[in-house]
Amino acid sequence: MSKPGQTVSAPVLPTLTARRLGLLSQHDAIVLMREDSPVCRSEGHAPRSQVLLRAGGREVTAMLYQLAGGHLVRAHEAGLSEAAWERLGVADGDEIQVRHPPALGSMSSVRRRVYGRRLDAGAMMEIVADVAAGRYTDAHLSAFLTACSTLPLDRDEVLHLTRAMVQVGERLTWDSPVVIDKHSVGGLPGNRTSPIVVAIVAANGLLIPKTSSRAITSPAGTADTMETLTRVDLDLAALRRVVEQEGGCLAWGGAVRLSPADDVLIRVERVLDLDSEGQLAASVLSKKIAAGSTHVVLDIPVGPTAKVRSRDDADALADTLAEVARLCGLEVRCVRTDGGQPVGRGIGPALEARDVLAVLRGAPNAPADLRRRSCLLAGVALELAGRCGAGEGAALADQTLASGLAWSKFQRICEAQGGLREPPSSTASRPVLAARAGRVTAMNNRTLARLAKLAGAPDNKAAGVELHVRLGAEVAAGEPLLTVHAEAPGELAYALDYAAANTDMLTIEA
Amino acid sequence: MSKPGQTVSAPVLPTLTARRLGLLSQHDAIVLMREDSPVCRSEGHAPRSQVLLRAGGREVTAMLYQLAGGHLVRAHEAGLSEAAWERLGVADGDEIQVRHPPALGSMSSVRRRVYGRRLDAGAMMEIVADVAAGRYTDAHLSAFLTACSTLPLDRDEVLHLTRAMVQVGERLTWDSPVVIDKHSVGGLPGNRTSPIVVAIVAANGLLIPKTSSRAITSPAGTADTMETLTRVDLDLAALRRVVEQEGGCLAWGGAVRLSPADDVLIRVERVLDLDSEGQLAASVLSKKIAAGSTHVVLDIPVGPTAKVRSRDDADALADTLAEVARLCGLEVRCVRTDGGQPVGRGIGPALEARDVLAVLRGAPNAPADLRRRSCLLAGVALELAGRCGAGEGAALADQTLASGLAWSKFQRICEAQGGLREPPSSTASRPVLAARAGRVTAMNNRTLARLAKLAGAPDNKAAGVELHVRLGAEVAAGEPLLTVHAEAPGELAYALDYAAANTDMLTIEA
Repeated sequence: MSKPGQTVSAPVLPTLTARRLGLLSQHDAIVLMREDSPVCRSEGHAPRSQVLLRAGGREVTAMLYQLAGGHLVRAHEAGLSEAAWERLGVADGDEIQVRHPPALGSMSSVRRRVYGRRLDAGAMMEIVADVAAGRYTDAHLSAFLTACSTLPLDRDEVLHLTRAMVQVGERLTWDSPVVIDKHSVGGLPGNRTSPIVVAIVAANGLLIPKTSSRAITSPAGTADTMETLTRVDLDLAALRRVVEQEGGCLAWGGAVRLSPADDVLIRVERVLDLDSEGQLAASVLSKKIAAGSTHVVLDIPVGPTAKVRSRDDADALADTLAEVARLCGLEVRCVRTDGGQPVGRGIGPALEARDVLAVLRGAPNAPADLRRRSCLLAGVALELAGRCGAGEGAALADQTLASGLAWSKFQRICEAQGGLREPPSSTASRPVLAARAGRVTAMNNRTLARLAKLAGAPDNKAAGVELHVRLGAEVAAGEPLLTVHAEAPGELAYALDYAAANTDMLTIEA
Repeated sequence: MSKPGQTVSAPVLPTLTARRLGLLSQHDAIVLMREDSPVCRSEGHAPRSQVLLRAGGREVTAMLYQLAGGHLVRAHEAGLSEAAWERLGVADGDEIQVRHPPALGSMSSVRRRVYGRRLDAGAMMEIVADVAAGRYTDAHLSAFLTACSTLPLDRDEVLHLTRAMVQVGERLTWDSPVVIDKHSVGGLPGNRTSPIVVAIVAANGLLIPKTSSRAITSPAGTADTMETLTRVDLDLAALRRVVEQEGGCLAWGGAVRLSPADDVLIRVERVLDLDSEGQLAASVLSKKIAAGSTHVVLDIPVGPTAKVRSRDDADALADTLAEVARLCGLEVRCVRTDGGQPVGRGIGPALEARDVLAVLRGAPNAPADLRRRSCLLAGVALELAGRCGAGEGAALADQTLASGLAWSKFQRICEAQGGLREPPSSTASRPVLAARAGRVTAMNNRTLARLAKLAGAPDNKAAGVELHVRLGAEVAAGEPLLTVHAEAPGELAYALDYAAANTDMLTIEA
């Protein structure tokens, strides 16, 4: 027994030697240690527990798995996944410490939220800081996201979440009183207007430093699509250079860490296929604020199988976005658009990129709906920025496309980002045929999106769905309705199974 | 393009060779494959995705990680974690198929539940079947559990969940009209009455086939405690043999798979430190029904820092339990008990086992409160079974202890389960001293439990907290209030840091 008042401190930890395993685990920081490692023994580490890795001043929370023997790692080594390796910034043979992570205090707030209590600004900040630092496991992240969906975030919480997300990330500033941004709340496959809008707005001399996310629950995000055309993982310096040179960019937001907490949350939202209003508002607005935007155009597609299903829901979402934006000093214009069917022909990164190129190039077969929507949204941005009078924006946008100015601007932006390339083609494809003759009276955005995802989108860039018909089209029995594109025969078969089982993707009435 | 009507089927998959990695990951089925594996290429498998492993008629859903190179697994091999290896039942060199898992249809129901819709019997059955089959990741499980906590399960849902959990597991039947069971809803550290109650009830000639869980959010479950005294991972045949021979058993429920879905859910509840009423009711009742019980005594401790905090909450929980039990054909008696402070002296598997042994052996220093509570609960069981008149149960129980009959029965049960042994002792311990003189006026069950967990309980059996004082005790400054026990110096230091920072564990007033 110790004497009264005697303090006890942690014993000095033996260090381990870092070993690179080449273990690919996406974003998961993983460490493999031997069961008989002296550190596992002295610290009482159990397999599948979280540990704190420390090397050269950096810290990473990682999942520990143990090895009963073998030669992969030795007793004095800690074998790291690629994600852990990069985040720790170590080299083979570096010394590394493995210890118990500090208690995850912010999980008490998540638990209180699970049981129905609201989060104040301080609690939200602690949660978001721990999320951004990678201290939450998937189970913790899922609990936070689910609790905030089942009992939806109220306006104060959305505001707290937005501000906390901005605070833990990088923040851009621009030497211009007007900085434009544009965003679609999603849910509509093929709705790839951003590359076109950026080209039109920048061609009109405005600043539009657009950062986009990868797909959350959809078959493609703008970043996934743009990645088939040019480099999108620009760091802050590169992004700034491109925007200063061309007035606009089309970069992946994750690479510039404008909202690192959101990047983490989005990974789990994707696994769960969840995307709730409050989370969406905070995600969108935090990235716009961090990007230094002053004026934002928001596209809200409304349709029975879109993310927003009714005019009332659209109004509620627009209210939340506008109110929180106002409190954060942003001017926002929400545009309700038709969400009754996919936009353009392609669903999937490369297929959507082809549609974008066709519109920008003024190709005769360019999808008219994609062109029309892009002009509508770019027009609102041009009006919002005072570049033209009220009601004149769409015409100015159309003219910018028709003159080729938007296409030139797009090419220059891609060149500045690392060079424009043609999107890849699929290696395996099969059509899905009409079972009967008749008229296409409904298209289900959700099952079509799911089909494209099962075919491999967005991970496999060339995978997805190519639509051959639109609402109102008359088809003959046996006529191809769509083509499924994949990069592997397994995925093609998997997607075609789904298509065969889900005949309500397109409704054909005699 | 295919001709109309042509069907497409999955190509024949190349098989891989199973390789045992000795990878310890608790229950996680993990497969490691080379990035350049022909199967990863042909099927388009991405790292950190779920795959379906198939060998010799068995199927296991596993998490796929990939290796960029190295010699751990070769291109034609699939390296398996111990959990995957055992569940697939393969031997080194066996052929194994790796394919895309079927779409997780029940997650649509979980998503609807996340957004506030109720689950009917069919949807609940699908979810529970997928959970039991190991098809949900931690993120999926956490979403289900959280949604059912934020919008609590209603009575119908608890009934559906209970029945579904019974249906996916094994179910025992006994050749007796009365089969007793006993359960505590938990939240009170050290409340280890079950071993004593089983001994008393079985010594009185009744059938009590008790299965217990491991700790969910607490420092010890009855199975963890019993494991320090005897073998608890009995299979169904062994359990039946012990009960037929001795009238009672104290087995781990997980090994007999009475409620395999609950075993999976409990692992994630533990990570999240969540334990909500509906889940608890379904978990308890499903295991009692599956164990073949007819009459159940439920201990509901009530106190400001217990799981159930008020009389009203206790009544609500008792109502839910009684109503769902009735619909399932079980007779349940709920007993509200004092939850104002831990029971006995020990908190942690081995420390609690010592308290249990002291009571059973009639040791002079045996904790009186543990003995009193055990007699109260055993008494209710004896009355419920008609073994004595109303109001006479506690006295009969006391007499069974005093006569040594309960101790003899306990020894025989342990012998039948594999032999009685003494619980282990800790290898590192330190007292926590009173900072001032005064009277102990409050004890915080939650922080005391957390302290025991940080010291390593329940994974390290000898770890935990040994209390030296009870409510109302007068202490001098510097007097030991409790001793922290650990099995590793790292954990001891970790727990003592927590004790130093959380001085409200015991309130001392002058």
